[in-house]
Amino acid sequence: MVGTIKKPPVVIKVAAICGSLRKASCNRGLIRAAIEMTKEEIDGMEIEYIEISSLPMINPDLEVDGTYPPEVEDFRRKILQADACIFASPDYNYSITPPLKNALDWGSRPPNVWAGKTAAALSAVGGGRRAQYHLRQIGVFLDLHFINKPEFYLNAHRPPGKFNDDGDLVDSETKDKLKEMLVSLHAFSLRLVHGKC
Amino acid sequence: MVGTIKKPPVVIKVAAICGSLRKASCNRGLIRAAIEMTKEEIDGMEIEYIEISSLPMINPDLEVDGTYPPEVEDFRRKILQADACIFASPDYNYSITPPLKNALDWGSRPPNVWAGKTAAALSAVGGGRRAQYHLRQIGVFLDLHFINKPEFYLNAHRPPGKFNDDGDLVDSETKDKLKEMLVSLHAFSLRLVHGKC
Amino acid sequence: MVGTIKKPPVVIKVAAICGSLRKASCNRGLIRAAIEMTKEEIDGMEIEYIEISSLPMINPDLEVDGTYPPEVEDFRRKILQADACIFASPDYNYSITPPLKNALDWGSRPPNVWAGKTAAALSAVGGGRRAQYHLRQIGVFLDLHFINKPEFYLNAHRPPGKFNDDGDLVDSETKDKLKEMLVSLHAFSLRLVHGKC
Amino acid sequence: MVGTIKKPPVVIKVAAICGSLRKASCNRGLIRAAIEMTKEEIDGMEIEYIEISSLPMINPDLEVDGTYPPEVEDFRRKILQADACIFASPDYNYSITPPLKNALDWGSRPPNVWAGKTAAALSAVGGGRRAQYHLRQIGVFLDLHFINKPEFYLNAHRPPGKFNDDGDLVDSETKDKLKEMLVSLHAFSLRLVHGKC
Repeated sequence: MVGTIKKPPVVIKVAAICGSLRKASCNRGLIRAAIEMTKEEIDGMEIEYIEISSLPMINPDLEVDGTYPPEVEDFRRKILQADACIFASPDYNYSITPPLKNALDWGSRPPNVWAGKTAAALSAVGGGRRAQYHLRQIGVFLDLHFINKPEFYLNAHRPPGKFNDDGDLVDSETKDKLKEMLVSLHAFSLRLVHGKC
Repeated sequence: MVGTIKKPPVVIKVAAICGSLRKASCNRGLIRAAIEMTKEEIDGMEIEYIEISSLPMINPDLEVDGTYPPEVEDFRRKILQADACIFASPDYNYSITPPLKNALDWGSRPPNVWAGKTAAALSAVGGGRRAQYHLRQIGVFLDLHFINKPEFYLNAHRPPGKFNDDGDLVDSETKDKLKEMLVSLHAFSLRLVHGKC
Repeated sequence: MVGTIKKPPVVIKVAAICGSLRKASCNRGLIRAAIEMTKEEIDGMEIEYIEISSLPMINPDLEVDGTYPPEVEDFRRKILQADACIFASPDYNYSITPPLKNALDWGSRPPNVWAGKTAAALSAVGGGRRAQYHLRQIGVFLDLHFINKPEFYLNAHRPPGKFNDDGDLVDSETKDKLKEMLVSLHAFSLRLVHGKC
Repeated sequence: MVGTIKKPPVVIKVAAICGSLRKASCNRGLIRAAIEMTKEEIDGMEIEYIEISSLPMINPDLEVDGTYPPEVEDFRRKILQADACIFASPDYNYSITPPLKNALDWGSRPPNVWAGKTAAALSAVGGGRRAQYHLRQIGVFLDLHFINKPEFYLNAHRPPGKFNDDGDLVDSETKDKLKEMLVSLHAFSLRLVHGKC
């Protein structure tokens, strides 16, 4: 129709972080699968993988005049641009991994870059529940809003194999679960982050 | 103006539960103060106090053909009508109180009456943090969405006195804190519960 | 030999509590199995089942001049006589059950009857981990010392059936696991409760 | 007396870890104060400060043929020699710090060097409770046995000043609290670690 202004579609921007530094991490494989999925099957959602391996171990002495090390500044800038976060991480000793906690803590330094975003947690390897509840408690202070459902736990090492030799997700049932999670995060983000109408 | 249809204001309906059965409970005093506040100072929010003292101790044997005891059915109906929940509760031994857990569990029986509501937690007496983190974890399964900020903890027994002999909140600083919490719950509920536009 | 005084064997007395009020509770079945086991296979350990269904819902108004209701006084006396505690309980909504929390809280009233005892947690039905971590945190304040290993989780409803129609444990693999847990609690109790030599 | 064999006194060896990498960390100040105390006032207890700042961020790819990086091997050896551990750490965003989690996780790699030790947690700066409960949950898997009492929390930044400009503990009330904690850890360790009589 002549003269109609079409409202541009809202796109939820997601920052995805892997809690393991292992090259062959299944959790990183989950993120790759999620990125593919948003390109092909889910409208209005873009996932960017954010690398955290170069962040120095947190130490307030590294902060000079409110400035953080360059890798930290770069990381914080990327998080700031996102509406939502995905944390794909194994459980180390009943809690979250040191690299993930390190990334969360650097992002929390003033001004807290996590504030007001939505979030979801994924675990590719058996367990994961315990780490995810610690992550959710941390999220209260960081002001992250986690989706409640579905909770995503996977037992990558229990047959049948869910990842191929390149660490790519190949199991269709797991793909369905992953998609369900992404759709839930998308809907929750629309309501919360863009629900200020 | 002729022909204009005025949109009725959205009212967030809140169910408020006290975790203590004590008559002189300060937590119940907080709920009374919150109810007063919504009547006088906060538009678009109504709080109803929901009594839980008559609920029987939970026992699945009390469920017959999917029907619950009358007090339970009555309680569940009231929760269903609310958009949001306030839990004002002391901390008993680093976790939530038995009456509050009992109410939560009865409400969770199928169909779960808590699903999709927003929530906030209050603690009138020292401590409270530990119970509130347990409550938040329970909320993941119940599908309650808690506000992150402000977290509300009070030390009712630390001078100066914050409640009068009738158990009514009289401290103006605490009233400000309480109002801040209610405003946050209101805004969060509007975005989440009514943000489906 | 004439004149020799034989040191009597140390017997660890255990109070066992079931967190579910259901008659056919598998967790109660676990306790029955544990009692049988200590009679037949484990020396130096006696388990007594402690009923908690008659405890009133906790309310500090029920305390008069430092005296508790008769059922509560009776319950507290039984706990006081034990060296160790076993909590066999389902997980209700990611935390412990109301009857179990109620028993723990009544026991904690001054003087705290749990102080210094050893403890172990059992879960007969899927999940259980989350409730057990809440229970352990509560135990810090109650001054209960939980064994770390083995953690005992069971999926009673996953085939093959582990309990018969009377709710009695019949699965030999589970019996082995249960025995391992009892032996661990026994050894830990000897070191901790009787390790004052 | 001729012929008498004097039993050597049992000495509890403690490894102390600071969760902050800050040079002026008050938590490290607490450890220094504890070391002084055991030299002057507490018999049968020796504390060694274990530095963790040189540990690489954990990454299973750094493990080659069951061997860990040299700094990790060195750290693990020191922990192995201890009977007990002290963790003095701030709370970062409602959980433990990345350097502390990193040390715990490196120590947990097979064979787990923490197994069977006693432990205590200290927090010099406001908060701390939340991190300590996460630490205790991690300890279940690591097989660390934490003392229950006293829990040690300090508000170093609340007047009056408790540390001097060199970061040394100068407040006598805090020293008393710290001593009480050390005495408790000592007694618990004697019963648990050496209670195998």
